[in-house]
Amino acid sequence: MSFSLTLPDRVKVVEVGARDGLQNEPDPVPAPTKVEFIDRLSGTGLACIEATSFVSPTWIPQLADAGEVFRAITRKPGVSYPVLVPNERGMERALEAGADTIAIFNAASDSFNRKNINASIDDAFKRLARVAEIAQAENVAIRGYVSCVLGCPYEGEIDYGVVARVAATMDAMGCYEISLGDTIGVGTPLRACRMLEAVVRDVSLDKLAVHFHDTRGQALANVLASLEFGVRTVDASVAGLGGCPYAEGASGNLATEDLVYMLHGMEIDTGIDLEALIAAGRYITGQMGRAPASRLGRLPEGRRRHRYTT
Amino acid sequence: MSFSLTLPDRVKVVEVGARDGLQNEPDPVPAPTKVEFIDRLSGTGLACIEATSFVSPTWIPQLADAGEVFRAITRKPGVSYPVLVPNERGMERALEAGADTIAIFNAASDSFNRKNINASIDDAFKRLARVAEIAQAENVAIRGYVSCVLGCPYEGEIDYGVVARVAATMDAMGCYEISLGDTIGVGTPLRACRMLEAVVRDVSLDKLAVHFHDTRGQALANVLASLEFGVRTVDASVAGLGGCPYAEGASGNLATEDLVYMLHGMEIDTGIDLEALIAAGRYITGQMGRAPASRLGRLPEGRRRHRYTT
Repeated sequence: MSFSLTLPDRVKVVEVGARDGLQNEPDPVPAPTKVEFIDRLSGTGLACIEATSFVSPTWIPQLADAGEVFRAITRKPGVSYPVLVPNERGMERALEAGADTIAIFNAASDSFNRKNINASIDDAFKRLARVAEIAQAENVAIRGYVSCVLGCPYEGEIDYGVVARVAATMDAMGCYEISLGDTIGVGTPLRACRMLEAVVRDVSLDKLAVHFHDTRGQALANVLASLEFGVRTVDASVAGLGGCPYAEGASGNLATEDLVYMLHGMEIDTGIDLEALIAAGRYITGQMGRAPASRLGRLPEGRRRHRYTT
Repeated sequence: MSFSLTLPDRVKVVEVGARDGLQNEPDPVPAPTKVEFIDRLSGTGLACIEATSFVSPTWIPQLADAGEVFRAITRKPGVSYPVLVPNERGMERALEAGADTIAIFNAASDSFNRKNINASIDDAFKRLARVAEIAQAENVAIRGYVSCVLGCPYEGEIDYGVVARVAATMDAMGCYEISLGDTIGVGTPLRACRMLEAVVRDVSLDKLAVHFHDTRGQALANVLASLEFGVRTVDASVAGLGGCPYAEGASGNLATEDLVYMLHGMEIDTGIDLEALIAAGRYITGQMGRAPASRLGRLPEGRRRHRYTT
């Protein structure tokens, strides 16, 4: 019997720890620590590092220093540093800080949107249309996030047709990449493939990224299924930053170190230095006074050496 | 574009928490607690529950109560309760306790075997041949474990031909099932498939089980690849019991709850009541004074409800 997984030669990893990760931290992380963290990430070989979010400081006080942090990081040539932008005001702040790539977001669930940003999917797109206009006028690249693609805390199961419609609208708005997010981490590999099947009817596969939360331990298996489906871009958060910081080990985000370990172990090139990535994760969690939520980050040096040489 | 994972309708889950899980616990767990734990597992719908190990108490004091525990559990009709047996003396104790299914083990690494049981692979098989003879004479079923199938802490990469040879020898000894174990959790899905490809040249696929440790977070992805390969039996440990109890969250074993969540989410029947399984994991970890290492076991009730109804 013969069987082989259908896998790519190369995968682009999008590091979201500095934004999606840190935004959930209740204790303030000083701006210089964030800058050092992002600069360390820049040294790992990552090609895309989400740096911060220009949401209202009243929504997310942790990222109130977005402008200060973005101005202070050393932007490495060839590395993209998207910043999250929720509205026109955030767009102005992002431009003032010198951002050349932004990320916009919308959920595939009206209920989630209403609770989260007090707007329906369509109303949210009306706000974002203005942001996209400004971005195009200023030659700013746009990344799109679709959240709740595999389930919603209020609506339960999500119609994948809605996910496809939201992704297609972002495509039409000029997003260079659209990241499909399982925000509450309920998805499994079969559901991930069914969702992708619905989305690729309307959006080109090479524009799609996947963003899985590991709330139920499914993230890496979902990534594997997505790679087999043909996805080539994966979001992850070093040290598993994000999720619930109060439940040690109960990570909310797929840990970049564990993702890169899988990719390298399957002979997939990422351009990332795994040891440097583990060090960056240990740096930021050390600054926050806890252990990384990544499996690799928690392994003692001695046991980390037990791995394939490739 | 269309793509679908090749998945089975049903998977047999082998619960190893009471043996492979507890044997690593430094603090003694009282026999009545082990009995209550195993009896709760029997109520979840699990069809195979590894109960204990008849190794020398000087090797593993935690399981010195093997006979007492095995006699005290309520053996549910239709459920199999294998016990680990390392040698003839262990076999005698297992028979005295009334065991009708045993598990034997051998590594795919001479170095690992020498450090672990002070015997080469071939010498270990000589000891086990006598155990198998007795088992056959007493109509005791035999399950086989091959360890280090994806890597060895002393030898590094393992020749999959050696894994195949060890598995084939266990097959010839009359094992009804052979569990292939990534003892140190270094494997990735591609390696798992390559290893399985080598083994199925000598052993029928329907006799194989996979046993992944989650040391690097790869276990569930490895299971998915194994299911796609055609494997239909998966070992797991409720609450992620096993691994290093000193590093909270750094599980050594694939958590049964997270495995079953994935299987059910992919419409694969297991016959297991997931809520009862989560409760059993919370019972034993509660008795040990810590939280489960499974993602599902750590989720608060409210968030656990965010899941597919199927």
